[in-house]
Amino acid sequence: MKRSLVPLFVLLTAGLSLPQALAKTVELSSPDNTITVSINDDKQPNYQITFNGGTVITPSKLGMLFKETHGFGEGFKISSVARNQVNANWELPWGERKTVNDHHNELLVTFSTERDEASRYQVRFRAFNDGVGFRYEVSKQSGLEQVEIIDELTEFSLENAKEATAWWIPARGWNRYEYIYDTTDVESVGNAHTPFTFKLPSGTHVSIHEAALVDYAAMTLKQHRPGKLKADLTPWSDGTLVKTQTDFKTPWRTIQISKDAVGLLNSDLILNLNEPNKLGDVSWVEPGKYVGIWWGMHIAENTWGSGEKHGATTSETIRYMDFAAKHGFDGVLVEGWNIGWDGDWFNNGDLFNFTQGYDDFDIEKVTKHGANKGVRLIGHHETSGSVTNYRDQIPDAFALYEKHGVRQVKTGYVADGGDIKRIDDKGIVRKEWHDGQFMVNEYLHSVTEAAKHKISINTHEPIKATGLRRTYPNWIAREGARGQEYNAWGTPPNPPEHAAILPYTRMLSGPMDFTPGIFDMGFNGLGDKTNRPQTTLAKQLALYVVLYSPIQMAADLPRNYEANLPAFQFIKDVPTDWQESIALAGEIGDYVAFARKEREGNDWYLGALTDENARELTLELDFLDKGKRYEAQIYRDGKDAEWADNPYDMIIEQKKVSAKDSLTLPLATSGGVAIRFKAL
Amino acid sequence: MKRSLVPLFVLLTAGLSLPQALAKTVELSSPDNTITVSINDDKQPNYQITFNGGTVITPSKLGMLFKETHGFGEGFKISSVARNQVNANWELPWGERKTVNDHHNELLVTFSTERDEASRYQVRFRAFNDGVGFRYEVSKQSGLEQVEIIDELTEFSLENAKEATAWWIPARGWNRYEYIYDTTDVESVGNAHTPFTFKLPSGTHVSIHEAALVDYAAMTLKQHRPGKLKADLTPWSDGTLVKTQTDFKTPWRTIQISKDAVGLLNSDLILNLNEPNKLGDVSWVEPGKYVGIWWGMHIAENTWGSGEKHGATTSETIRYMDFAAKHGFDGVLVEGWNIGWDGDWFNNGDLFNFTQGYDDFDIEKVTKHGANKGVRLIGHHETSGSVTNYRDQIPDAFALYEKHGVRQVKTGYVADGGDIKRIDDKGIVRKEWHDGQFMVNEYLHSVTEAAKHKISINTHEPIKATGLRRTYPNWIAREGARGQEYNAWGTPPNPPEHAAILPYTRMLSGPMDFTPGIFDMGFNGLGDKTNRPQTTLAKQLALYVVLYSPIQMAADLPRNYEANLPAFQFIKDVPTDWQESIALAGEIGDYVAFARKEREGNDWYLGALTDENARELTLELDFLDKGKRYEAQIYRDGKDAEWADNPYDMIIEQKKVSAKDSLTLPLATSGGVAIRFKAL
Repeated sequence: MKRSLVPLFVLLTAGLSLPQALAKTVELSSPDNTITVSINDDKQPNYQITFNGGTVITPSKLGMLFKETHGFGEGFKISSVARNQVNANWELPWGERKTVNDHHNELLVTFSTERDEASRYQVRFRAFNDGVGFRYEVSKQSGLEQVEIIDELTEFSLENAKEATAWWIPARGWNRYEYIYDTTDVESVGNAHTPFTFKLPSGTHVSIHEAALVDYAAMTLKQHRPGKLKADLTPWSDGTLVKTQTDFKTPWRTIQISKDAVGLLNSDLILNLNEPNKLGDVSWVEPGKYVGIWWGMHIAENTWGSGEKHGATTSETIRYMDFAAKHGFDGVLVEGWNIGWDGDWFNNGDLFNFTQGYDDFDIEKVTKHGANKGVRLIGHHETSGSVTNYRDQIPDAFALYEKHGVRQVKTGYVADGGDIKRIDDKGIVRKEWHDGQFMVNEYLHSVTEAAKHKISINTHEPIKATGLRRTYPNWIAREGARGQEYNAWGTPPNPPEHAAILPYTRMLSGPMDFTPGIFDMGFNGLGDKTNRPQTTLAKQLALYVVLYSPIQMAADLPRNYEANLPAFQFIKDVPTDWQESIALAGEIGDYVAFARKEREGNDWYLGALTDENARELTLELDFLDKGKRYEAQIYRDGKDAEWADNPYDMIIEQKKVSAKDSLTLPLATSGGVAIRFKAL
Repeated sequence: MKRSLVPLFVLLTAGLSLPQALAKTVELSSPDNTITVSINDDKQPNYQITFNGGTVITPSKLGMLFKETHGFGEGFKISSVARNQVNANWELPWGERKTVNDHHNELLVTFSTERDEASRYQVRFRAFNDGVGFRYEVSKQSGLEQVEIIDELTEFSLENAKEATAWWIPARGWNRYEYIYDTTDVESVGNAHTPFTFKLPSGTHVSIHEAALVDYAAMTLKQHRPGKLKADLTPWSDGTLVKTQTDFKTPWRTIQISKDAVGLLNSDLILNLNEPNKLGDVSWVEPGKYVGIWWGMHIAENTWGSGEKHGATTSETIRYMDFAAKHGFDGVLVEGWNIGWDGDWFNNGDLFNFTQGYDDFDIEKVTKHGANKGVRLIGHHETSGSVTNYRDQIPDAFALYEKHGVRQVKTGYVADGGDIKRIDDKGIVRKEWHDGQFMVNEYLHSVTEAAKHKISINTHEPIKATGLRRTYPNWIAREGARGQEYNAWGTPPNPPEHAAILPYTRMLSGPMDFTPGIFDMGFNGLGDKTNRPQTTLAKQLALYVVLYSPIQMAADLPRNYEANLPAFQFIKDVPTDWQESIALAGEIGDYVAFARKEREGNDWYLGALTDENARELTLELDFLDKGKRYEAQIYRDGKDAEWADNPYDMIIEQKKVSAKDSLTLPLATSGGVAIRFKAL
């Protein structure tokens, strides 16, 4: 009988300062026994986690408080436990890999008290080989029907927080998730978003996040005393954290654990903690690559609004569709096509009309033109944070797009100052956070409504990803971090280390529509080091492999690709849907290397990139299929390349390789390498 | 007729994006016309402030939102204005000066809308020569009786926030106000406490704070978009910000403005915006100096709890009383005298008993002993944040102290992790912030209850000061920043610049019980640079003049004073109550110099200190009374003094001076100078 199946009760004698009742401890271990969660009910239910015998999480509280009744705080005791064990494979309709293994041990702990109301709750723990998830489950009971949560007590406590290093962005800021990452000791962290990733002095890497965020407020972390990070749920405008009713289950609180940085990248824990696909047949969800009328607005060659420089015209769209068809792209994104962009659109979201285009944009004409060439229009709905206005128009807006063969819509929730505007049931305007419960539900509503029209959603200014793409595979991508657009106008732009931090933080949550592929860094003149991508050209190509998304944009203007077709070939070749993905090497904020194999194909791809430091990577090619021969088509930094003054120096070369070989790859400052391993 | 008395309406034509109604602007200027506030009702009521023709505050929103009804947001218009002018003197029973001048122009603006409920509110503006105050006044009206405020919209907006420098501590942290000050550009500020002080590129210095914080949540500031600082009221545990009923008035939002750093130090604006003394005869409120059984616990020579090293014994108290009497001190603070300190007192505040002493402490004996020598016991109530337990015992606790002649009590609200514990009316334990509305009321309750027993309160872990000492003169001092204690065990201790920032930030709000006067820096060995005061000895003396408080402790152990009686003489001489105070020179974070004249006496005192940089100050003595001769008794850094390895090198010298002279004073690294000008 495996140890993890044994219901294990350890009785501790009470210390001097404890009440007389005996405290109980129950334990749960991962299938490989490297991770152990220990749950204790001394004073207040709490848990701790060890990994390879070392402490990862020190005793940390569990519980929550309600507005109108006693909550689940002190005095609850373990009254029963139940165990379960799972080892199963399941399939992703699209993703980093086709088959995902879910191997975990489960422990369901019931806490109860003798008080006569709100007397009982459960915490379901799952221990995987790559981390731990747990969630609260609250059943119907006396005194608990309509529930307003005013505090979630969940802690994540660390020893020696001063000696642990975190990579993090601030929470509850006006700019949503769009911040440059900060690298500090953990004790210097204030309020932080998740995924919150840190490295312990032992070298163990940990990332705290959540899975399956549905009908609940997003969890941010607050350091409420040194080394004690606490769940800090994003409140409603009236201060309440969550409004719900029993039965309810919270999202999973997740703690990914690995002996090294790369291990975090190969974890499927977040997906494993989500519910299976609820949409049935999703063959209409289409991974792919696209171009769009977009970058021209960011570098001020075009406007979203009407007038002389209006980007979204019929003729321009047709030009892009022809370009897409010529080079094998699936879609053309068109922003600024609909009424509402003129004037102060940041503040006038209520003026957006999602079914009426500008006069110079003929949706029927462009979609027919595209259909003849195998290119779809990609739709666009900018709400400017006026979600009531958007919600009212959603049925008609998606119906219009469906009628014209649109299969994917990019939504936007820019919202001046970060304030979402909703109108409540009394007709009063309320300003909500992007990551409060109201918007959590609103984002998912747009996705499920879109599914009725066989439309996939790519949310910008989104709620963070929590693995819901498993349950709703038409939630195909999202933004949720600083993307390429900051390199057009950001002050400052994304620094060289940005893309060497994203994989270990933001990308742990799921796909990002980063929009790689800027070929012309000199739109303000190359000498302007602070208003341009701070990368080499080869690094722009590497992003297609490093930053996973089932949809990838070729973000630059067509003329810049036409001017460098040899480099463009990689973007044309690289798939966006994978049979397998393997993180090969990396350190947070320094560098990263990924290999991925195309879905239902034979080719492998490799992408690697570095921060501001040049470096040389030697990578074993043992991921390649044994016994096969490949032509490695290598796009790498030239010997004089460096991001600031010589970003375009790139060498394209071919080598014959097999799984027995290794490659030594030089990366320039903020450089990269992209490789297609074409099966011979 | 003065310009400031003219009701001035400026009609603006509406811009393209405006509704058709015309926007109104009204203006208010300071008596000297250097400061102008401009109030406008375009879209949403807002104000802006100029100083000497330059912009200080750009258009910034006014208003608030309620939970159950429309709030005061957009669409309110100026419907009437009323003006008033005041130029009057009033007296402080104790303070930095005896007579305070209140000279201001007032404008009361009524905003209204045509909606049928919550249709009307007023904002009362006062323009002084040293800044602006405004508050909201909300009358009874249809639909507004019980009110829950869920957002206060007040903004303080800056131009070029990236080029303005702020000195600030983070708000909503676990450690209340006890942080090392951060110096950053304003745009890098997240959540900050007030007083929030910054310097504009023009050299104008500004400090945002509040006055008369009563029955309302404390205002912290949040940068909700770049350069826009917004009122961020500290919430109740249930998320509501303020629970009140109409009529209500908010605290004053204050903006102190000066052409230089020193100007902020000479402002009485906060006091002027508070209500006059409500306690009547307060001759029982006694400024003075004290010693105490305190530092011994901080450096671990003694314990608060019982046992071998118990500090608060009868014999030790008598020893301190004898020392106090010998050297002219008024009181002896005794901490750790009462039941509750044993075990984990940070977490067991409910065990504190405020009337029962430990067996080895005989309150009757020590107070009788003191009475014979003219020394009072100073009481101590540590609540550990268990305020319900404290409130229940307050009547008996103060009665006991009053019976034994105690006139001053130091209270404490340490609270593990910053959580105040209260028990609500359903018997549920709630955790509140120190600066939320609940605790704002609780602190004032302790002060008004104490007044009934002729007891003054020195609050530690307090709500910040907002000038309520004018209204309740028995609220004699408080902590509310990192004090000397951090030099015993802080990691790190207060850095050399700390006392050169405090005057311009924390001290603008009122007196602080910093507890200066550590003579033995080497309690861990002088070589331990990080666990000791990072100052010279002369700087310890300077603190008595620089950091104003009507009560000042001589914080070190008696044996350390006995070992250096020449230096101790300054502490024995320096008064704590002043006829006049003048900030002479300074720059924030660099240095500061104050002159103060003793209340009802002839002597002047001077204190100056510097940050980590040594410097030489030349100060004109023109503050001295004209025609009088003084003996300057100077305590200054010796020529080899520097804080790290040679803190004790101090020269004591005498010079004959008059108002026509100047003094050139050398300050060592983290050094200082203290001078008594003894009238001849």
